[in-house]
Amino acid sequence: MKYKRQNNFKLSSNIFGRIWFSMRMFLFNVLSFGPMPAHIAFIMDGNRRYSKKHNSKEDTGHSAGFSSLTSTLQYCYELGVKYVTVYAFSIDNFKRKPDEVRSLMNLLKEKIDELLEETSVVNEYDIRVNFWGELNLLTEPVRLAAKKAMTVTGKNTGPVLSVCVAYTSTHEILHAVQESCANVNKMLAVRYSNECINSAEGLVSVADLEQHLYSVSCPEPDIVVRTSGESRLSNFLLWQTPYCHLQNPGALWPEFSLRHLVWSILQYQRAYSSLHAKRMRSKKKY
Amino acid sequence: MKYKRQNNFKLSSNIFGRIWFSMRMFLFNVLSFGPMPAHIAFIMDGNRRYSKKHNSKEDTGHSAGFSSLTSTLQYCYELGVKYVTVYAFSIDNFKRKPDEVRSLMNLLKEKIDELLEETSVVNEYDIRVNFWGELNLLTEPVRLAAKKAMTVTGKNTGPVLSVCVAYTSTHEILHAVQESCANVNKMLAVRYSNECINSAEGLVSVADLEQHLYSVSCPEPDIVVRTSGESRLSNFLLWQTPYCHLQNPGALWPEFSLRHLVWSILQYQRAYSSLHAKRMRSKKKY
Repeated sequence: MKYKRQNNFKLSSNIFGRIWFSMRMFLFNVLSFGPMPAHIAFIMDGNRRYSKKHNSKEDTGHSAGFSSLTSTLQYCYELGVKYVTVYAFSIDNFKRKPDEVRSLMNLLKEKIDELLEETSVVNEYDIRVNFWGELNLLTEPVRLAAKKAMTVTGKNTGPVLSVCVAYTSTHEILHAVQESCANVNKMLAVRYSNECINSAEGLVSVADLEQHLYSVSCPEPDIVVRTSGESRLSNFLLWQTPYCHLQNPGALWPEFSLRHLVWSILQYQRAYSSLHAKRMRSKKKY
Repeated sequence: MKYKRQNNFKLSSNIFGRIWFSMRMFLFNVLSFGPMPAHIAFIMDGNRRYSKKHNSKEDTGHSAGFSSLTSTLQYCYELGVKYVTVYAFSIDNFKRKPDEVRSLMNLLKEKIDELLEETSVVNEYDIRVNFWGELNLLTEPVRLAAKKAMTVTGKNTGPVLSVCVAYTSTHEILHAVQESCANVNKMLAVRYSNECINSAEGLVSVADLEQHLYSVSCPEPDIVVRTSGESRLSNFLLWQTPYCHLQNPGALWPEFSLRHLVWSILQYQRAYSSLHAKRMRSKKKY
C-alpha cells in the first residue's frame, strides 16, 4: 500500500515536476516487485560537515538536513514504507557547547512547529508523529511542541514518523528495565500483600522489557541507514536492530537523495532471504 | 606492550618462516606508530559458505575457521592487543538441525581441549580464557571443557580471550537486569528488614547493569570485525559497541588473513580521533 499524497501534483505543477514525479512512480513500481521494508531508520549524520564543506554557519547544515529529511520522508511514504524513525538528537549531544545546544533546541522547536503546518508533509500523508527519548531533558518550548505534535497527530491513520530526541539506546533499555522492575514488584506486592519481596530474579523477561521500549508499537527496523560513510550505530536502536540491514552511504545527510534511498532498498532486497531466515530463527522458541 | 611468544622462532624454523616473521614484526612496528586497539571482537561469519564454495562437508569450513582463529589470535597478540573476543555460537544456533548442532558441539569440545594442549596458542602467550554465555545450554562435555579451560587459565597473566558461546546480547542484558534487580532487592531487604518493597524504580542504574554484564572486566571493544561482507551485529555485544569501529571485510572467516587484520586496524586509526572524542563525550556526566 502506498500512502498517496492528497494532491500528488501540488508540488509538481510544472511540466518538469510532472515528468520527475512520473519517473519516480515508475521506479517505485519496479522496486515494489521485490520485498519492501516496512520500517526504515535513519541516523542523519553529516550536517555539521556539510556546513564546513560549504564554508557556512552550522545552522546551514542543520537546515539543509531538515530539507533532506522532508524529501526522504516523502519518498518513503510514496514507496509504502509504513514506519520511518530518525535519530535527531542524542543525550550525548547535550554535552556540546551551550551555544550550539541552544541553537539546536531553537531549530528543533521551529521544525516541529513546521511539521504541523497545513502544507507540511505530515498533513499531506496523515502522518502520526512520535517522539522517543527522555523528553524532560529538552527545553520547555521544545518539550511542549513535541507533546503538541504527538497529541495533534495521535489519531492520524497514515504512516508513523518516530523522532528520537534526547535519546540513547542504553537509556531506552535502562528506562525499560526500571519500568519492568517496578511493574513486577507492584504485581508481587498485590499477590503477596504484606509479605516481603526479596528478589525479582527470573521475573523480568525479554517480553517485559520489550513492552517498555519506546518502540513497542513498531515492528523492528528492516533497514538502518547511516549517512557519511560511518557504520557505527552510535547508541541508536541497539536492541531493535540485531537482524536488520545496515547501509552506510558515503553522502552527508543533507546530500542524501533518492538514488541513495533506492540503492539502500535494493541492497536490502538482495540480503532479504538470509535476513528474514535469521530473524525468523531468532523468534523461534528454543 | 607486545605479548612475545615464549619461542618466537619455534614455528619459523625454516628460512621462509623467519623471513615472514621478520616482515610481520616490521609491519607491526610501523602500525604501532598509530593508536592501537586494546580490544578487538570478531564475528566469525562464513564457515559454512566456505565449505559450500569448496564443495566439501560443513565440518571443513568450521575446522578451517578454527585455523583462521588461531593465526588471528597470534597476530593480535604479537600486535599487543590485550583483549580478543570471538562470537563462536549464538543461542539462535541451537535452532539449527539437530545433527549440525551435535556436530558443532563435538567440534567445540575438541577445539577447547586443543586450546589447553601444551603447544597451543594459549600456552604460548599465557592467555586467560573466558566463556561468555548461558553455559547451561551447552552439552555437558562442552560445558565441563569450558569450565576446565577457565579454571586452568584463570591465573594466566597474558592477553584475554573471551569466547561467546550460547550467547546473544539481548540474553546477556536480560541476565544483567535480573542480577541487578535481585541485588537491589536483597540490599533493600537488609535495609528495611520487615518492610515490604513495592518498587525498584530508579534503583537500577547503568553502572549496576554493567557490573553484571559478562564483559565487566574488559574495556569496550575498539573494533568489531564481521567477515563475509555483512554489517549486522547479529545480537553480539550490542551494549558494548555503540562507539566502536565496525569493519566488514568481504572475505569469509576461514579466508580472513593478516592483510584483513592490518587493514581493519588502519581504518580504525583513521577514524580514531572522532571515535575517541565521541566515546569520551558519552562518558561525561550530563
